[in-house]
Amino acid sequence: MDLRSLLEAYKDGRISVDEAERALRLDYIESIGNDVLFDRSRELRKGIPEVVYAFSKSPEVVGRIAASRESLTIVSKADGRHLDAIREAVPDADIHEDCGIAIIGRMPERMRGRIGIITAGTSDIPIAKEAQFMAEAMGVECIVEYDVGVAGIHRIIAPMQRMIDEDVDAIVVAAGMEGALPTVITSLSPVPVIGVPVSSGYGMGGKGEAALMSMLQSCSPGLTVVNIDNGRGAGATAALISVSGRRR
Amino acid sequence: MDLRSLLEAYKDGRISVDEAERALRLDYIESIGNDVLFDRSRELRKGIPEVVYAFSKSPEVVGRIAASRESLTIVSKADGRHLDAIREAVPDADIHEDCGIAIIGRMPERMRGRIGIITAGTSDIPIAKEAQFMAEAMGVECIVEYDVGVAGIHRIIAPMQRMIDEDVDAIVVAAGMEGALPTVITSLSPVPVIGVPVSSGYGMGGKGEAALMSMLQSCSPGLTVVNIDNGRGAGATAALISVSGRRR
Amino acid sequence: MDLRSLLEAYKDGRISVDEAERALRLDYIESIGNDVLFDRSRELRKGIPEVVYAFSKSPEVVGRIAASRESLTIVSKADGRHLDAIREAVPDADIHEDCGIAIIGRMPERMRGRIGIITAGTSDIPIAKEAQFMAEAMGVECIVEYDVGVAGIHRIIAPMQRMIDEDVDAIVVAAGMEGALPTVITSLSPVPVIGVPVSSGYGMGGKGEAALMSMLQSCSPGLTVVNIDNGRGAGATAALISVSGRRR
Amino acid sequence: MDLRSLLEAYKDGRISVDEAERALRLDYIESIGNDVLFDRSRELRKGIPEVVYAFSKSPEVVGRIAASRESLTIVSKADGRHLDAIREAVPDADIHEDCGIAIIGRMPERMRGRIGIITAGTSDIPIAKEAQFMAEAMGVECIVEYDVGVAGIHRIIAPMQRMIDEDVDAIVVAAGMEGALPTVITSLSPVPVIGVPVSSGYGMGGKGEAALMSMLQSCSPGLTVVNIDNGRGAGATAALISVSGRRR
Amino acid sequence: MDLRSLLEAYKDGRISVDEAERALRLDYIESIGNDVLFDRSRELRKGIPEVVYAFSKSPEVVGRIAASRESLTIVSKADGRHLDAIREAVPDADIHEDCGIAIIGRMPERMRGRIGIITAGTSDIPIAKEAQFMAEAMGVECIVEYDVGVAGIHRIIAPMQRMIDEDVDAIVVAAGMEGALPTVITSLSPVPVIGVPVSSGYGMGGKGEAALMSMLQSCSPGLTVVNIDNGRGAGATAALISVSGRRR
Amino acid sequence: MDLRSLLEAYKDGRISVDEAERALRLDYIESIGNDVLFDRSRELRKGIPEVVYAFSKSPEVVGRIAASRESLTIVSKADGRHLDAIREAVPDADIHEDCGIAIIGRMPERMRGRIGIITAGTSDIPIAKEAQFMAEAMGVECIVEYDVGVAGIHRIIAPMQRMIDEDVDAIVVAAGMEGALPTVITSLSPVPVIGVPVSSGYGMGGKGEAALMSMLQSCSPGLTVVNIDNGRGAGATAALISVSGRRR
Amino acid sequence: MDLRSLLEAYKDGRISVDEAERALRLDYIESIGNDVLFDRSRELRKGIPEVVYAFSKSPEVVGRIAASRESLTIVSKADGRHLDAIREAVPDADIHEDCGIAIIGRMPERMRGRIGIITAGTSDIPIAKEAQFMAEAMGVECIVEYDVGVAGIHRIIAPMQRMIDEDVDAIVVAAGMEGALPTVITSLSPVPVIGVPVSSGYGMGGKGEAALMSMLQSCSPGLTVVNIDNGRGAGATAALISVSGRRR
Amino acid sequence: MDLRSLLEAYKDGRISVDEAERALRLDYIESIGNDVLFDRSRELRKGIPEVVYAFSKSPEVVGRIAASRESLTIVSKADGRHLDAIREAVPDADIHEDCGIAIIGRMPERMRGRIGIITAGTSDIPIAKEAQFMAEAMGVECIVEYDVGVAGIHRIIAPMQRMIDEDVDAIVVAAGMEGALPTVITSLSPVPVIGVPVSSGYGMGGKGEAALMSMLQSCSPGLTVVNIDNGRGAGATAALISVSGRRR
Repeated sequence: MDLRSLLEAYKDGRISVDEAERALRLDYIESIGNDVLFDRSRELRKGIPEVVYAFSKSPEVVGRIAASRESLTIVSKADGRHLDAIREAVPDADIHEDCGIAIIGRMPERMRGRIGIITAGTSDIPIAKEAQFMAEAMGVECIVEYDVGVAGIHRIIAPMQRMIDEDVDAIVVAAGMEGALPTVITSLSPVPVIGVPVSSGYGMGGKGEAALMSMLQSCSPGLTVVNIDNGRGAGATAALISVSGRRR
Repeated sequence: MDLRSLLEAYKDGRISVDEAERALRLDYIESIGNDVLFDRSRELRKGIPEVVYAFSKSPEVVGRIAASRESLTIVSKADGRHLDAIREAVPDADIHEDCGIAIIGRMPERMRGRIGIITAGTSDIPIAKEAQFMAEAMGVECIVEYDVGVAGIHRIIAPMQRMIDEDVDAIVVAAGMEGALPTVITSLSPVPVIGVPVSSGYGMGGKGEAALMSMLQSCSPGLTVVNIDNGRGAGATAALISVSGRRR
Repeated sequence: MDLRSLLEAYKDGRISVDEAERALRLDYIESIGNDVLFDRSRELRKGIPEVVYAFSKSPEVVGRIAASRESLTIVSKADGRHLDAIREAVPDADIHEDCGIAIIGRMPERMRGRIGIITAGTSDIPIAKEAQFMAEAMGVECIVEYDVGVAGIHRIIAPMQRMIDEDVDAIVVAAGMEGALPTVITSLSPVPVIGVPVSSGYGMGGKGEAALMSMLQSCSPGLTVVNIDNGRGAGATAALISVSGRRR
Repeated sequence: MDLRSLLEAYKDGRISVDEAERALRLDYIESIGNDVLFDRSRELRKGIPEVVYAFSKSPEVVGRIAASRESLTIVSKADGRHLDAIREAVPDADIHEDCGIAIIGRMPERMRGRIGIITAGTSDIPIAKEAQFMAEAMGVECIVEYDVGVAGIHRIIAPMQRMIDEDVDAIVVAAGMEGALPTVITSLSPVPVIGVPVSSGYGMGGKGEAALMSMLQSCSPGLTVVNIDNGRGAGATAALISVSGRRR
Repeated sequence: MDLRSLLEAYKDGRISVDEAERALRLDYIESIGNDVLFDRSRELRKGIPEVVYAFSKSPEVVGRIAASRESLTIVSKADGRHLDAIREAVPDADIHEDCGIAIIGRMPERMRGRIGIITAGTSDIPIAKEAQFMAEAMGVECIVEYDVGVAGIHRIIAPMQRMIDEDVDAIVVAAGMEGALPTVITSLSPVPVIGVPVSSGYGMGGKGEAALMSMLQSCSPGLTVVNIDNGRGAGATAALISVSGRRR
Repeated sequence: MDLRSLLEAYKDGRISVDEAERALRLDYIESIGNDVLFDRSRELRKGIPEVVYAFSKSPEVVGRIAASRESLTIVSKADGRHLDAIREAVPDADIHEDCGIAIIGRMPERMRGRIGIITAGTSDIPIAKEAQFMAEAMGVECIVEYDVGVAGIHRIIAPMQRMIDEDVDAIVVAAGMEGALPTVITSLSPVPVIGVPVSSGYGMGGKGEAALMSMLQSCSPGLTVVNIDNGRGAGATAALISVSGRRR
Repeated sequence: MDLRSLLEAYKDGRISVDEAERALRLDYIESIGNDVLFDRSRELRKGIPEVVYAFSKSPEVVGRIAASRESLTIVSKADGRHLDAIREAVPDADIHEDCGIAIIGRMPERMRGRIGIITAGTSDIPIAKEAQFMAEAMGVECIVEYDVGVAGIHRIIAPMQRMIDEDVDAIVVAAGMEGALPTVITSLSPVPVIGVPVSSGYGMGGKGEAALMSMLQSCSPGLTVVNIDNGRGAGATAALISVSGRRR
Repeated sequence: MDLRSLLEAYKDGRISVDEAERALRLDYIESIGNDVLFDRSRELRKGIPEVVYAFSKSPEVVGRIAASRESLTIVSKADGRHLDAIREAVPDADIHEDCGIAIIGRMPERMRGRIGIITAGTSDIPIAKEAQFMAEAMGVECIVEYDVGVAGIHRIIAPMQRMIDEDVDAIVVAAGMEGALPTVITSLSPVPVIGVPVSSGYGMGGKGEAALMSMLQSCSPGLTVVNIDNGRGAGATAALISVSGRRR
């Protein structure tokens, strides 16, 4: 029941003043909020999958959550035991061992946007895949270039040309170690870039810390970042940029 | 001279093989790069101001740079002595003491996009203004809401409604202390949000560290961040999202 | 023998001056301290369980300690091997695998107070349970609301209403990741809130660090914190607030 | 206009359905929230002063805020220039140079509770005073013991006896350097203790870091902490514990 | 051959000038150093065991080193696999599983000094034992008091009285968590105290970090520290203080 | 009145049971503690100066404290304004601008021990002087060697020979930057060494952090450390080692 | 086809203007870069092995990469499972379990330079071997001295004499714990020294952090560093210094 | 007197055995060390200037040191007050205000080598000059390229071409902010590169921390680093590489 119907129902005597007050105060306050704020975002967001973050949950809990899902759901940061629990709970789940992801439910068929995804090295691929699955689940096509490197800057030019030719709306760049690639890419890109530091590397600045700091310190305007290994968040934001931009 | 003209000039004997080689190797290699990559971004980026970061430069150096500028330039992170040097070097510069910014040259008149800017408290306003001037210099209009807070969550609803009504393409949220506001805003926003941690706060997690970490840890998809106090970068990226999205 | 009896025994010649001096100096100094300071706290604290922190002890040591307990004892931060050692040593111990807790002895029956316990997500539940068992062992009833979230702020209102309706004396809020929930809860709460950062989250600010810093930076008066994952300490303090307040 | 009056006004035709909807949606949503949640807390919180945190604001901004206040307001973390601006803006403000505090408006006369405040050394006194003024502004009397130390543990006993005799409801303990005093006090206290790390100390663990960490690591149940130098937050929470406990 | 004999051998023609030069330059330079500097320390140090730090070595390497020892050797920080390798290599080694120590060779029989060793809790005992074995291997008797705590300060008095009665020359205090005990002990001790932070504790300041910082920040003169878990170093230094002091 | 006199006074009826109880409980508990524990340390400690740490106190407070001292007092970490306040308050104070120290009262004349003090460079001298004044105030003579360096290891041998010839009981080594000197000195020293990291150095590990960590990681048994720049603590402990050792 | 040939082919009509443009723009841009910049470095670098960093890759991926190599390749930071995968994929690979290295292909026979490699302790040997294999694969001979120590400085002299006698062009020094050895070596060395901090050590500054900081803080000119455990990078740079220096 | 002369003097009876022993033990041990080790390095190092690090010294001390110098000396990290003290002490000193350097004495005239120096931005120039003056003082010519940037990678090619054409033996690259330039330069360079992180930048990773970590994490073999802002050390090492390489 929407707000205006409720007011009318009260005026018509179909509900008492107590019922109206209660509905307005507690039960419906969420609907009001949604009604007010989500009118326009609902269309945009339609198809955003549920995301379950397996990392700090037990396999049992993850399995139980997976079994209860009715709409498209992505389980990320899952280890082998989490994935086994999902397989048992949802036999037709789409399991990706190499990046710790399980997809439950049906991916969208119509593509509503297009983004680019670039990795510096092969170690960054699992995180890039997390971004890719998230974006695809939101109906956004991904143009992918792996292992572009930064040590050989001449290798960057062809992938960037492809991104521009394919007319992507945003580019996700996953890089560990020194994390210099997003800065270089941003200097060449006409669209926003989202840097994803990857937890490779050892010693001082290892586990993605140098990469994150380097991206935060970057002088290239147009670059924003997500946390270390948060491919999911980068993919979701890049997809949102693409979908919002194309809605006009 | 573009690449094809150069090839023809060589074929026609107007330039020698040595001149052609030299042009291709060294002098023109930059143009080639630009030609290849920046065809499409040039239009988008037209009007992006030069940015000079005063913080780690002496007032003399900043004054000299300011005096030499011919196109729109924004000097940021300038203290009183930097601003005095600019005033002397460029008497008609537009000086903003409260946020350490000087604008040299003419701001664009035609607006090509629209973004929102929200601050958690009054301490965050100088950084928000940095974002605003940067975006406006890129021809993007800014809808601004200051002092929205997070301790009283009911105060968030009206500003968000305005952002949606004004149809912004991205929202910059500046917040210090605990930095929770961008997470809450992102949960309500249909467009991408860029969090700017602000270096207020003291003690453990002070100077923007807690705010940055909190934003990086945020569960709300659609939120990316820039470094502490980097209003300039947030404004530039939000403006780029708006302009890229509207070019279609 | 209390102090006055001792003085009298000495005056009456039942003990020598040497015995009196020795009793006062060494053996009885602890009793004096207790006598002086703990008169009033004893009643309040009656029923406070012993707590054994298993984390940095070997399973053998934990088992031996468990077997030797005569009064109510809570073993916390126990892993599977610790719990097995307890099971063997105390077959009727109450074992909670999901939160690493074993309860040895009898829980109090009469409830002397009431507190609220709220978690941001499902990952925070084991730590919340640690708080709950600790408070219940102190004779304090717990009103529990799990998975309240912060990304959807409208979901906070109903649980808070319940806390107020149930007239709790303090609220424990367990939250990992960005740790924003305790700040929001405190802004709505008429009673003190104790934030427990939870060691979920990865990357920069992960393992509860962002959550702790965010809570320490919070602007909401009425919020204090305990260390990351210290559900036990939060539960004990909340219970102490409730019991002290109700003693009047 | 409260919710029920609004409903009746609509039913009676005094306001149109559009007016009713608008009132419910945007303008009144804050009141609804307040109405629902703050019924009970309002009484408790009556008399809570506004707090202005001067640290990251310019003197001009602080002066302007001070001049605009109509109810009791505490300005904290103010340096000499902030205090001068307040003096000029509000000549009868009560200025405390030694702890960077200005009190604007009238302190409450009736005391509604009582807390204890203890410092380890003389360096901790300014922060302790911040707690004291905050609590007194909330109508809570403060029993104060300065310079209790931890290096001479025998000096702790008399102050603790006084706290118990005065029947305080909570104790704020401010300590810098190694920060051991709150742990020792908590072990002797029948009421909750709030530790305030103070930013004295130099070298590794200096500026309050060791003190904060030591308090977070404390084994004494009943101890919670606020951030380094946050006397204001500790005083507010201790006062809230006292007032909530005594309302019954 | 000592230095004077060498000079005489040369003068007497028993060795050539080349041989003398070579001996002085390279081969004997070490002996010279020893001769010059260690005259007095040799007596003191006689009986100092070799120490092998197993932590970052493979079990094979540790086993091989153990088998090759001819004088008293202590292997510390050994895990189960290191200890197994030692057992196989040196069947009559004295193995202490609970503190990861193996003693190879014969402990001294005559005691040349006496120190005290105190722990805050049971988790600190393995590190205290490391100190104890090291000191005993240097011929120094250890007066040990475990589990003294800091939360109950009255429990500290009797152990301290014993330390004084036994006339120890130095006291090693091992403490994890908040690490307050060494500060308190030092305030009561007439002899130097060496604090050993222990890597118990979790969350912020865990793994001994808060304990180390707290000890470094301590105001009690007479306290120095060694690194986290370095029981071996604390025991060696305390023993050296005792032996040096008693040589007079 | 000592304990036994008090017991007799009570037995003789000179004081009532109430008076006896009160004396034993509160007023005299400090004396009892002192009586029990400090019998032996009092003699050793006789002559230990009061130490006032100026750093986190205002000049006014430091001046007032200085004026009130009756026995030997050392004010350390004093800046120019602190020293001016002391000069005004105590005109005949002995002021040492170069190391921020003021000595109030009379230094002891009879030397009861001897220690060595070594610095790596000239930047370390102010901290070394802090150690020296503290030790001399405790009646301990100091053998001083400045600017010994570590980059030229051959320069270490003569100073060490002198330390041994002078028969020092402990050596304080102050070193900033890489902090390697205490490790090297300890390898050559027959007596305990106390390392004082000095807050020179810039960049990563600057302000004494690398020096502290390097000393904590040192493999040389016989080395303990105090906090960065804590010359006072190192001097006091070295003096205590010397005085305790010589009392036998 | 080099640049000049391409220009001629175009002039001669063997390729069209479109083909020429395309070749210059995209396909050949890499060659141009190489051609321009790498003329001289190619000779020097001839024989530099490919390096595969196994740490953050799965065994399957590492095995696949190993199988695909045609030229000399070094796999570093490989654990047991990585090495098993390599053994299966490339049966004649040269596997070094003790330092996690696999060498695929043929090492060079002719030595083009000579460097020294020194370790402080036995724990540093695996990292030193990484440097050695890397340098040897680049055709550079290694003079190796293990277990030189820093605690006994007299033990440093003979190894240094050997380095000088063997006329090495650079010295790699691997050291964990306090990391003082590279500073001491550099003070004695006529050639550049590269410090490699090793991740041994525990507690504060452990895992190579103190060693790295100590080396960064070193006052000895001639010392540069690589990251913790980066033996590979140190070996490659030392070899490059040797080969570049000898090419003249 | 060298070693052999001393032996002869003793044999000839010109000095007694006591005198010979003493000379060998103490006085001459330094000469022996020098004699043994510095034979070959002396020639190389001839002309290395003394370096005085002003940062942590008072202006008076720096002035006094400057006045006492007889050979070429470089004072670095000097602020205005240090430079004034030098000006007064040594009127003809060569003062460089912009990089805090004073040169006392005569720079060498003959150049013995050649290195390259590159900066990412104008903020990095003062540190680059420190490297330049140090190298020039060692008789090494510097090819300098300022403000090369990393955001526009095409701008890197011409400067690199110049470095190769000028046949430099090593390249110093100074870069703040994200510190990516040394990685890119190393990928293009046939000679060793020394990265100098510069303390520009603010927020997370500011003050050179991100730059240092990024360089330490770099994948480009041939890159080593010095500490943040240590231009002096980088210049000295690059010069040493050049001079050692050219001595053959």
